Amino acid sequence: MATQAVTPQSVDFSKWYNEIVYKADLAAQSPVRGCIIIKPYGYELWEAIKAGLDRRFKATGHRNAYFPLFIPESYLRREAEHVEGFSPELAVVTHAGGKQLEEPLVVRPTSETIIGETFSEWIQSYRDLPLLINQWANVVRWELRTRPFLRTTEFLWQEGHTAHASEADAEEETLRMLDIYADFAVTEAAIPVIQGRKSNIERFAGALRTYTIEAMMGDRKALQSGTSHNLGQNFAKAFNIMYLDENNERQYCWTTSWGVSTRMVGAVVMAHGDDKGLRLPPVIAPIQVVIVPIFRNDDERGEVLAAARRIGAELEGAGVRVHLDDRDGLTPGFKYNDWEMRGVPVRLEVGPRDLQNNTAALARRDLPGKESKQFVSQDGLAAAVRDLLNAVQANLLQQATAFRDAHIHDVKTYDELRQVVEAGDWARGWWAGSDDDERRVKEETGATLRCFPFDQPDGPGACLFTGQAAREVALFAKAY
Amino acid sequence: MATQAVTPQSVDFSKWYNEIVYKADLAAQSPVRGCIIIKPYGYELWEAIKAGLDRRFKATGHRNAYFPLFIPESYLRREAEHVEGFSPELAVVTHAGGKQLEEPLVVRPTSETIIGETFSEWIQSYRDLPLLINQWANVVRWELRTRPFLRTTEFLWQEGHTAHASEADAEEETLRMLDIYADFAVTEAAIPVIQGRKSNIERFAGALRTYTIEAMMGDRKALQSGTSHNLGQNFAKAFNIMYLDENNERQYCWTTSWGVSTRMVGAVVMAHGDDKGLRLPPVIAPIQVVIVPIFRNDDERGEVLAAARRIGAELEGAGVRVHLDDRDGLTPGFKYNDWEMRGVPVRLEVGPRDLQNNTAALARRDLPGKESKQFVSQDGLAAAVRDLLNAVQANLLQQATAFRDAHIHDVKTYDELRQVVEAGDWARGWWAGSDDDERRVKEETGATLRCFPFDQPDGPGACLFTGQAAREVALFAKAY
Repeated sequence: MATQAVTPQSVDFSKWYNEIVYKADLAAQSPVRGCIIIKPYGYELWEAIKAGLDRRFKATGHRNAYFPLFIPESYLRREAEHVEGFSPELAVVTHAGGKQLEEPLVVRPTSETIIGETFSEWIQSYRDLPLLINQWANVVRWELRTRPFLRTTEFLWQEGHTAHASEADAEEETLRMLDIYADFAVTEAAIPVIQGRKSNIERFAGALRTYTIEAMMGDRKALQSGTSHNLGQNFAKAFNIMYLDENNERQYCWTTSWGVSTRMVGAVVMAHGDDKGLRLPPVIAPIQVVIVPIFRNDDERGEVLAAARRIGAELEGAGVRVHLDDRDGLTPGFKYNDWEMRGVPVRLEVGPRDLQNNTAALARRDLPGKESKQFVSQDGLAAAVRDLLNAVQANLLQQATAFRDAHIHDVKTYDELRQVVEAGDWARGWWAGSDDDERRVKEETGATLRCFPFDQPDGPGACLFTGQAAREVALFAKAY
Repeated sequence: MATQAVTPQSVDFSKWYNEIVYKADLAAQSPVRGCIIIKPYGYELWEAIKAGLDRRFKATGHRNAYFPLFIPESYLRREAEHVEGFSPELAVVTHAGGKQLEEPLVVRPTSETIIGETFSEWIQSYRDLPLLINQWANVVRWELRTRPFLRTTEFLWQEGHTAHASEADAEEETLRMLDIYADFAVTEAAIPVIQGRKSNIERFAGALRTYTIEAMMGDRKALQSGTSHNLGQNFAKAFNIMYLDENNERQYCWTTSWGVSTRMVGAVVMAHGDDKGLRLPPVIAPIQVVIVPIFRNDDERGEVLAAARRIGAELEGAGVRVHLDDRDGLTPGFKYNDWEMRGVPVRLEVGPRDLQNNTAALARRDLPGKESKQFVSQDGLAAAVRDLLNAVQANLLQQATAFRDAHIHDVKTYDELRQVVEAGDWARGWWAGSDDDERRVKEETGATLRCFPFDQPDGPGACLFTGQAAREVALFAKAY
C-alpha cells in the first residue's frame, strides 16, 4: 500500500487541501479542463448536504422543479448587469445534431433568465404568489483558475427562485433562505458562519441586495458558502413577470434567488480538517463509525469478525452509518491512520480481550492522542456511540467557533486593518467608504469586504478609511 | 377557472397524452427546442422514482458518483460502434470563456467513454473489482422528433457503470440490474414489464448484449422503459481498462452499463391513465390522499376545515402524503374532477354530517362511479386509508397485467403477425430471421422486435418468417 501521509496544514495549507481532497477519495482529477470527478465518498457527503438543505426547503413550502440546461443566448442579454457579469464565463453550444444552430445556446451559468421567462407564463394573479421553486442542477462557468470543489468549471448546486407580490415579501424570503443556510451550516456542517450583506461590488449581477454566509477556513481565509439575492424588480421587468393584484391592476413581481453548491464540501474540508486529514461532522459524515477488528491469528480472526459484524448490525439497526473494515493484510495501525485521514468521527476497536470483557474501545477523531479513547461495555453500545457522535458534533462546532472568534479583530484605522490582514486574520471596523475605496483596500491589502454582518455594535462610528460617520461595521478578509 | 377536460383516450391517445402531461402540471413547454420544464408535480413523481431505484442500487453495493458533463470529442471516437450510434445526436460546445476551444467538447449523450477513461485509472488489481458506480445526471441527445418525457433533447436519468473480472460476473450484474428495474416497475410503478433481450439491431451502440424491460401503454404501444447492457470488453479495450489478476497477469475488464430515465414518468402516465386523466400508483404518487372539505356556509366552513386539518395531521403522522384542498371559491365537484385529473389515488371527503356521525367518505381513483366510494369511521382512519392505498396499488397492477395479457397474441405466420400488429396488439412468435428480415418486418408492418422475452415456451419452433427452426420466441409491437 502507498503511504497516505499528507503535507501538514502548518507547512502549506493550500497543498494540504489539494492532497487531502484526492487522497481521501472525495474527488479525482478529470480529463476535462477545470472539472473534477466527484468520487463516491465525496458524493455521499454531498448527498448528506443535499438532504439537509432539501428537507429545510420543503418544510418552508418550496417545491423542486427542473429547467433546461441550455439557455438561448438572447435571454442573457435582457438583464444588462446580468449579461455583463456572466458573459466572460459562458460555454456555448454552436452545433447540434450535425448542424450549426441558428441561435447559439448557452450552458446555464445560473437560471434566473430562463426561469424568469417561465415565471412570466406561470404567474397570472396574486393568487399564484408567492411562487417558491428550487432546482438541483449542474451549472457551468468557465473559470480561469480552478480548485476542486471551491471553484470548478462545472459544479453541482441548488438554485432557489421565488416570486412575490411585494418588496417586503421578497426581502423576507431572501432573509429566510439565508437563515436556512446558516442553520444548516451551523447545526449539520458544524461551521459557525457569519450572516451579512454583501457590498455593492460583491453583489450578484442583477440583484438589488445580496446576502451571504461567510465561513472561516483553517487557514483563516474566508469562504463565501452560500448567497441569497433580493433581485428587486430587475428580472421581473426584463422578463415581464407580472401579476394582477386584488384591484385587478397589473404589477411587476419581486423576485429572489439563492444558492448553495458543492463548494460546501470544500468548506467542510477546510473548516474542520487537521494535519492528519479530514474531520467530518457526524451529522453529515458518510461513515459515522468505522469498526476495526483486532486479531493475531485465524482463530481470533473468526471470533473477532463475528463480534464486529454483530456490533455493526446493532449500530446500523440504531440508525448509525457504520462501516466494518475487514480488509485482509493491513495492520490495525494502518487502518487507524487511513480512517483518520478520511475523517470518520468515531472508530470502534474490538479485539480478543474485548470479547472476554464484553467491551469495546471507542476513539473520537476530534480529540488528539489518549484523550480521544475510552473503553465501554458492549451493553448499551448504541446509546454510548450516539452520545459520542453528539459530543463530536458539538465539539467541532465549538472548536471552529473559538478559532473564528480568536481571529477576528476590531480595527479603528486602515493601518490596523492592514496589520490584521497581513497577519492572516479578519478585520472588523466601521465602514462608510465608496466602491473605489473598497477596491483600493483590495488592491493594497488583498482583503475583500466579506460582508456587513447582521450582528452590529451600537453606532454610528468613524469609518476606518475615510473617518466619516459610518452606520455599519464591515468584515474584511482574504478569501477564496 | 378554465375547464380542465382532456381529449378522451379513445378519441386520440396521443393527443390525450400531450394534453394530460401539461394540464396535470407534470411539465411545461420550454423555450428551448425539444426540452421540457419538469414542473413540481412531475418532479415529485420523478423524485419518488429516483428514491425507489436509488435504494435498490445502494442495497446491492452500488455507490453514486458524478462525472463531467463535457466529454472531449476524441473520446467518442475510440469505440467505433459507439461513435457511429451517437454522432448524429450530439450537441457540441465549440466556444467557452470567450474563446474557441482547441478540442470541441460534446455534451454527454451517455457517459461510457469518460467513465471508461476514469475506470482505466481507478482499477489496478482484481482487488478493485467489481467496481459498482451509478450516476444521477442530465444527458443531451439532439432528437428530431420529441415528446414530453418520452423523448426530449435533454433528459434526466441514472446511468450505472460497472467493471468486473470475468464475463460471467459482468453478465450476472447486467441481469441483476435488469431485475432491479423490473422489481421497481412492478412493485412501485405497478407496471407489469416484460424482461427480455434486444435483437442485434436494437442493441446499444457498443454493447455485446442489451436487455430491456418493455411495458405496454394504454394504446397498446410498447415503451422501452429501462435497459441494461453487457458491454463485454469493447469499452475496456477502447479505454484500456485493465487489472492485474491473482497470477499477476494483466487482463481486460468486462464492463456493464444500465439506465432508467424520466421516460419512466411517461410510462406511468400511459400505463395507468384513463379518460379522466392520470391514475398514479400510491407508492410513488406525490399526493396519496387529497382531502376535500364540504360546507355550505361560514359556520360549517370553520368546523369542517378544523376537522379536515386534524384528519390531515393524523394521516401525515401515519406516514401518508396528504394534501388538503382548502381553496376558496371552488365547488367540491370542481375539486373532485381536478384531483381525479391529477391522478391522486384516494380522495377523502368530510362534511357537516360526517362531523356528527364521526365518519368520512373515501373515494378511490382506480374504480369508476359508485363502486369507488365508501364511508368509514374517523376512528382508525389511518389504517383504513393505508388498506385502501394498498388495494389501489394492487388493483392498478392487476388491471395493467390483465390488459397486457389480453393484447399479446401468439402467431405462427407472418400474415398472423401482420393482422395482430395492424389491430394494434403485440405478436409473439418463433423467430430465427436475419437482421434484414427484421428490418423488413419493421418496414412492412411498423412493428419492431421488442425483445426475446426471458419467459420462453418449450422449443424449438418454426420461425414465423423463414419457417426454419427457431430457438426463441420474440415479441413484435409498434413502439414509442
